[in-house]
Amino acid sequence: MSEFTEALRSFFKTDKYVELSGIKIVDVNDEQAVVQAEINENHLNANGCVQGGMLYTIADFAFAVLGNYLHPSTVTQSGQITYLRPAFTKTLTATAVETERAGHCTISEVTVRGDKGETFCICHFNGFVKDVDKNEWIKKINEGK
Amino acid sequence: MSEFTEALRSFFKTDKYVELSGIKIVDVNDEQAVVQAEINENHLNANGCVQGGMLYTIADFAFAVLGNYLHPSTVTQSGQITYLRPAFTKTLTATAVETERAGHCTISEVTVRGDKGETFCICHFNGFVKDVDKNEWIKKINEGK
Amino acid sequence: MSEFTEALRSFFKTDKYVELSGIKIVDVNDEQAVVQAEINENHLNANGCVQGGMLYTIADFAFAVLGNYLHPSTVTQSGQITYLRPAFTKTLTATAVETERAGHCTISEVTVRGDKGETFCICHFNGFVKDVDKNEWIKKINEGK
Amino acid sequence: MSEFTEALRSFFKTDKYVELSGIKIVDVNDEQAVVQAEINENHLNANGCVQGGMLYTIADFAFAVLGNYLHPSTVTQSGQITYLRPAFTKTLTATAVETERAGHCTISEVTVRGDKGETFCICHFNGFVKDVDKNEWIKKINEGK
Repeated sequence: MSEFTEALRSFFKTDKYVELSGIKIVDVNDEQAVVQAEINENHLNANGCVQGGMLYTIADFAFAVLGNYLHPSTVTQSGQITYLRPAFTKTLTATAVETERAGHCTISEVTVRGDKGETFCICHFNGFVKDVDKNEWIKKINEGK
Repeated sequence: MSEFTEALRSFFKTDKYVELSGIKIVDVNDEQAVVQAEINENHLNANGCVQGGMLYTIADFAFAVLGNYLHPSTVTQSGQITYLRPAFTKTLTATAVETERAGHCTISEVTVRGDKGETFCICHFNGFVKDVDKNEWIKKINEGK
Repeated sequence: MSEFTEALRSFFKTDKYVELSGIKIVDVNDEQAVVQAEINENHLNANGCVQGGMLYTIADFAFAVLGNYLHPSTVTQSGQITYLRPAFTKTLTATAVETERAGHCTISEVTVRGDKGETFCICHFNGFVKDVDKNEWIKKINEGK
Repeated sequence: MSEFTEALRSFFKTDKYVELSGIKIVDVNDEQAVVQAEINENHLNANGCVQGGMLYTIADFAFAVLGNYLHPSTVTQSGQITYLRPAFTKTLTATAVETERAGHCTISEVTVRGDKGETFCICHFNGFVKDVDKNEWIKKINEGK
């Protein structure tokens, strides 16, 4: 793992709501970011399937990881989620892929899937890219420790 | 409180992710739904402000409460959130107001605000209305207990 | 009419696609912008009702007029439209109202209605505000003539 | 060309706003729909680049062609467009690709590009699929002539 990826993962380990939600980074590379959660009772809504906020949270985190990996640092400007079917599953996996980058804007699509590869939601995020130097970013993260 | 509002509140008490996120119903009436959370360390992101997923989750819940109050039962089809400023605050309040109802579709706007009334995000939700009879709905909820 | 409103109206008269679509500014003030079109055969889709692109175009224009009136100059970053019912009507009216302004971001809601006040679509726009001085803007518009 | 594709093209030839906007179907197949317009003065906004409504209209049409090709008949429920750069170009090409189909819902991404392949906007559409039989659909279209 590169020094940058290590700094990025260590940065996101301090995200407390992601920790509360049990979401972990599986992989991040030039092509995609993959994050995952083992589903337990705490993630469910009143109907017994994964709650809509949890589905959004895992998608938003996949985008944050990808955006900040590709272009440190990226801030989410807006997010959009479409729910396709009730999420009954033991594991939730969100995969973010960048659609386009232009100027300070990055757009990504995130797909949230269950155990059997079935798609629960499709999400689109617009981020604002601040274009920070990677080494500066690593230095800043390490100082923040 | 009407029998229906009571059943609705009791139904949403079984939403585990809302409980995990510390969100509570303040009020729901024909005009609006208001939900609230006391912010603690668990709600923060790696930059120390309220995490984007938490901001969405509280908005989505305000919409769920309003939608199901006005037209039981309402399922969220899609949500859209725009982030306006970093959310440094001790309390988070989300207020949902219906914009339009047409056929099976309901659209609401949810505003998420902080201690000082400052707006952190503006959200829009599209819901699908199943048009269940209120008494049938109450009966179903009570049986589910 | 103020010199600024006059310059704004004269600026938007040079929008050729708006002219092609037969859309006219009815009013713009601190509260709202209202634009309108008399519907003819050219506006219809293959099902004989107002085409989805025309419905978006009139909404987008209402936002452009309001945004540039309130904060010259404003550029549309993203737009979102939900269609509620088929648009059979002789006149189309789009009304834009600002939801929130924060930093360089402005959010507005636009409602597109028919003859009988029935709502055909609800739209939300995010704009980027460049914060140009009004007098500079008027000067620039007049020089552009 | 199959009888169905022929009927589909003949159906969309009666879309008057698409005709007014000078948009033509280039290709539609199981993978994508491509539509195009030669840009002239009528398509421009007050700044001299392609107007935002025109950019949306061509994207929306690409989605309508793809959606109805893949699943007759499909009605647009909502559309979302992000503008990435000013559209100075002689030709505008919109390419629609389906992201996901689930139940009555179809989601597609449409990319609008210029002469040099530069991306002007990224759009996402949600459609409602009515699931009409293809032969019934052809019959209905031919009777409508």
